Amino acid sequence: MKDADLVIVSVPVGSSGAVAADIAPALKPGAILTDVGSTKASVIAQMTPHVPEGVHFIPGHPLAGTEKSGPDAGFAELFENRWCIFTPLPGTDPAALEKLSEFWRRCGSNIDTMDPEHHDMTLAIVSHLPHIIAYNIVGTADDLESVTKSEVIKYSASGFRDFTRLAASDPTMWRDVCLHNKDAILEMLARFSEDLASLQRAIRWGDGDKLFDMFTRTRAIRRSIIDAGQEVDVPNFGREAIEHPAKS
Amino acid sequence: MKDADLVIVSVPVGSSGAVAADIAPALKPGAILTDVGSTKASVIAQMTPHVPEGVHFIPGHPLAGTEKSGPDAGFAELFENRWCIFTPLPGTDPAALEKLSEFWRRCGSNIDTMDPEHHDMTLAIVSHLPHIIAYNIVGTADDLESVTKSEVIKYSASGFRDFTRLAASDPTMWRDVCLHNKDAILEMLARFSEDLASLQRAIRWGDGDKLFDMFTRTRAIRRSIIDAGQEVDVPNFGREAIEHPAKS
Repeated sequence: MKDADLVIVSVPVGSSGAVAADIAPALKPGAILTDVGSTKASVIAQMTPHVPEGVHFIPGHPLAGTEKSGPDAGFAELFENRWCIFTPLPGTDPAALEKLSEFWRRCGSNIDTMDPEHHDMTLAIVSHLPHIIAYNIVGTADDLESVTKSEVIKYSASGFRDFTRLAASDPTMWRDVCLHNKDAILEMLARFSEDLASLQRAIRWGDGDKLFDMFTRTRAIRRSIIDAGQEVDVPNFGREAIEHPAKS
Repeated sequence: MKDADLVIVSVPVGSSGAVAADIAPALKPGAILTDVGSTKASVIAQMTPHVPEGVHFIPGHPLAGTEKSGPDAGFAELFENRWCIFTPLPGTDPAALEKLSEFWRRCGSNIDTMDPEHHDMTLAIVSHLPHIIAYNIVGTADDLESVTKSEVIKYSASGFRDFTRLAASDPTMWRDVCLHNKDAILEMLARFSEDLASLQRAIRWGDGDKLFDMFTRTRAIRRSIIDAGQEVDVPNFGREAIEHPAKS
């Protein structure tokens, strides 16, 4: 590492401070130090005190990956057409930022920058809340006595299985995300629960108009995601195309 | 319809009683009458009073379909390797049930029978709750002021977009499901909310061990769904395989 121009720290978010302390003596002046953690304010607070003078620390987060983890889960196109977000600190050298951006662009990523707090709030709604909700609903189903586990599995194609992909993600990573982006996650959970209580009330009181309105406005978002090239425009995630290759 | 041996009612659940009353005079003795509704106790309550003597009414529910609706959303393999559940009434003629089962088997379905209440409870957890939760989280994201809608769309690949597929389903159908399977849905929502409150508490108090345990046990369910042939064994629903056909 002594001669490295670029050092990418890819460790559980909770270990980033300890790792920064360990590697600090080996970082050469002018090197770029970055990370790939899912939370940014916490990583910055942990790592910054250990970054030697003259080293460019630029926190980063490539939004890519599947529910599988570890080196074997990688593939050549992993970062293609995916976003990589930087949360540069005040006074960051523009040349270093451009060099790091070019690295990620050559991996296929699109680049965005924002401040760490906005990153953590954005990721709380687009990533952290969805994973927590998915883990929760799969847990609720797992605990039922009235419906057996084998029935949940047999009939999962009716909706449930879409949640199981997220709920199969790495538990260590998601524990750390919850511990290190606590405030933003609690804020999103509170909003979600308020909305759900309102929906539950509409169901209890048989308010069909309200239910219809709520179920209508969400369709436009999916269309926008498909138009933005962040989703495939085939029904059911193209599962039929996979199961019946002749159709695709 | 006067000469039909088999009549399949495929209308919004809330209209099944009115439709049964309309068609009753045209049903010939010995005909099989069935439906494809997502709830069963309510459909039975609505239709049974109108079924003429000598007509075999066998409530059914093929668990198939995508987030798209209408005739154009159909395709030849729609029912292949999917379950079709019957909830026969007491005294149902076994020969009629076998004839109807054979019809669905020839469409590619696997057949199951259970009582209507158990059907409604099972579907509440495997289908109705997932859809309601998906609608709710997409609505919560849509209402945020701190994160713009275009950011939610841009970064949706981090988890959020998996929910948007279910939340793009037909609002009329899902309004009716909520109105006609109210008790089972409220029961599942109460369990889900209790579990979520417990998870939220673990996040607030930084209980990493509890979070890790909760996030670990849900992985096994996905493996079982894949082993049961109800899901494809490729990461990310095989989205990469679709976007990069050379890889598949």
